[in-house]
Amino acid sequence: MINPMDRGFTLGDGLFETMLVEDGQVRHLQAHLERLADGCAVISLPPPAPQAVQTAMDRALVEGGTGRRALRLTWTAGCGGRGLDRPGDPAPQLSVSCMPAPLPGLARLIIARTVRRNEHSQASQLKTLSYLDNVLAREEARAAGANEAVMLNTAGNLACAAAANLFWVREGRIFTPALDCGVLAGTARARLVAAHKVAVVIAGREALDGADAVFLTNSLSGVRTVESLDGRVFEPHPLVEALAAEL
Amino acid sequence: MINPMDRGFTLGDGLFETMLVEDGQVRHLQAHLERLADGCAVISLPPPAPQAVQTAMDRALVEGGTGRRALRLTWTAGCGGRGLDRPGDPAPQLSVSCMPAPLPGLARLIIARTVRRNEHSQASQLKTLSYLDNVLAREEARAAGANEAVMLNTAGNLACAAAANLFWVREGRIFTPALDCGVLAGTARARLVAAHKVAVVIAGREALDGADAVFLTNSLSGVRTVESLDGRVFEPHPLVEALAAEL
Repeated sequence: MINPMDRGFTLGDGLFETMLVEDGQVRHLQAHLERLADGCAVISLPPPAPQAVQTAMDRALVEGGTGRRALRLTWTAGCGGRGLDRPGDPAPQLSVSCMPAPLPGLARLIIARTVRRNEHSQASQLKTLSYLDNVLAREEARAAGANEAVMLNTAGNLACAAAANLFWVREGRIFTPALDCGVLAGTARARLVAAHKVAVVIAGREALDGADAVFLTNSLSGVRTVESLDGRVFEPHPLVEALAAEL
Repeated sequence: MINPMDRGFTLGDGLFETMLVEDGQVRHLQAHLERLADGCAVISLPPPAPQAVQTAMDRALVEGGTGRRALRLTWTAGCGGRGLDRPGDPAPQLSVSCMPAPLPGLARLIIARTVRRNEHSQASQLKTLSYLDNVLAREEARAAGANEAVMLNTAGNLACAAAANLFWVREGRIFTPALDCGVLAGTARARLVAAHKVAVVIAGREALDGADAVFLTNSLSGVRTVESLDGRVFEPHPLVEALAAEL
C-alpha cells in the first residue's frame, strides 16, 4: 500500500516504466532501467538501487502469474516536504506490479483537439506520474469511438500518441517526430530508429494526410498497426507488417 | 493508505484542494468544494458526495490538532482500467489530511526557465495530481536561492507561480494574468478579482519590469508580499499591505 503523503500520489512526483513479460522474461530490461535512470537525472531524483529493483521485480513476477504480462515499476519522490518543496533528505519509494497484458489489436486514432503536449517541459519526454493530459487525450479518443489519440504539441506539430510513439510511411520512407517536439522517449521507438533508416522530423498534422501508412510503437505492443485516423481508413502496408514481425 | 493501483498514484488522475484551517474553521470551504466540482466536470469525474467529504474532513480536523492547519482533500479516479483507459464504472477515492501550515514569509521569486505551463490543456487551470511541472519549477527556484517560481506559458506570457497566483501593481492599478494563459483558478485570486478593480491581462514577463510591486495569493497565505524577483528588490507597497490585511 502507498502512504497517502507519498509525493507520487499527492503531486505526481515520480516516474514509471512499463515492460513486457513473455515466458517469465522481462523484455529489454536494461533499456528500461537506463531510461529510468536518465529520467531521474532530469527530475533530480536518485535512481533506485539495482538490487532493490531486482528483488521487487522477482516478487512481482511470481505473484503476477504466467502468460503475457505488463511489469510496472513506479519510482516516486517518497514522503515529506511541505507543499511542493521536496524534503532535504528524500526517501524515494519503489513499487512494482505485474498484470495481464492482452494484445491491443488495431489502433483507431483521432488527433486530440482538447489537449496538447507541452514540449516546454522536459517531463514531456519522460514516463512521469503526472500523466493526466495523456488520460484526457485517451478519454477524448474513446468518446469519439476511437481507441488512441495522437497528440500535437503546443506549436501544433505532431508529437506522439497518449501511450505510444507515432510513425508514418510515405513512399517507402519511415518518419517519426523528434523528441524535442514533446515526444515520449520510447524504448521501442529507440530500437526502431537505431535499426532502420527513419527520418526524425518536425512536422505538422498535414504530414499524416500524405502518409501511405501510420503505426504506433510501445513496449507492450511493439509495432501496432493503425487502421484509421480521424475516420480515414488505411490499407495494410507490407513495410509495417514486416516491422511488426521484426519488433 | 492508498491502493498502489489507484489512478491518482499511477497516472496523476485526480484533483486536490488545499484549505486553510484557523481556530478549527475551514476557510472558504464552499468556494473550494465548488472549484473541485468544476474541475471534476472538466476531467469527467463525478464529484464527491458532500456527506462523505464532511465525514472525512471532520475526522482529519480532529486528528490534525489545533492551530494553523492546511486541510487537503484529494479526489482520484480510483482503481481500475487497463493502462490509460478509465474503467467503465469508476470508483473514485477520497482522502483527506490535515497538517501544520506555518506562514511562509516573504516571497523571493525567479522566473522559471526550465519549464512552462501548458495553456493548451484545461488541466493547467486545475489543482490536479499531475503537478510535476510545478515541482520542477519550485526546484529551480530553490536551486537559485529563491523560494517560489513564476511560470510563463508556452507562448511566453506570464501565468502564475508554482503554488500561487501572480499579481502586480503599477501606478496604483492591480494586474493579473487571464485564466486562459494557463493560470490556476485560485480561490483567493477569485475573491480579490471580485472585490477590487483588477485588470485581467495577457502580458509577457516585461510587464513585471515596470511593476511597482508584485504579490502572490493562495489559500494558505492569502496575499503574500514579494520581496524580490530575479534579484530585483521591491520596496514595501501600501496597496499590497492593505490587501494583505484585508484578505
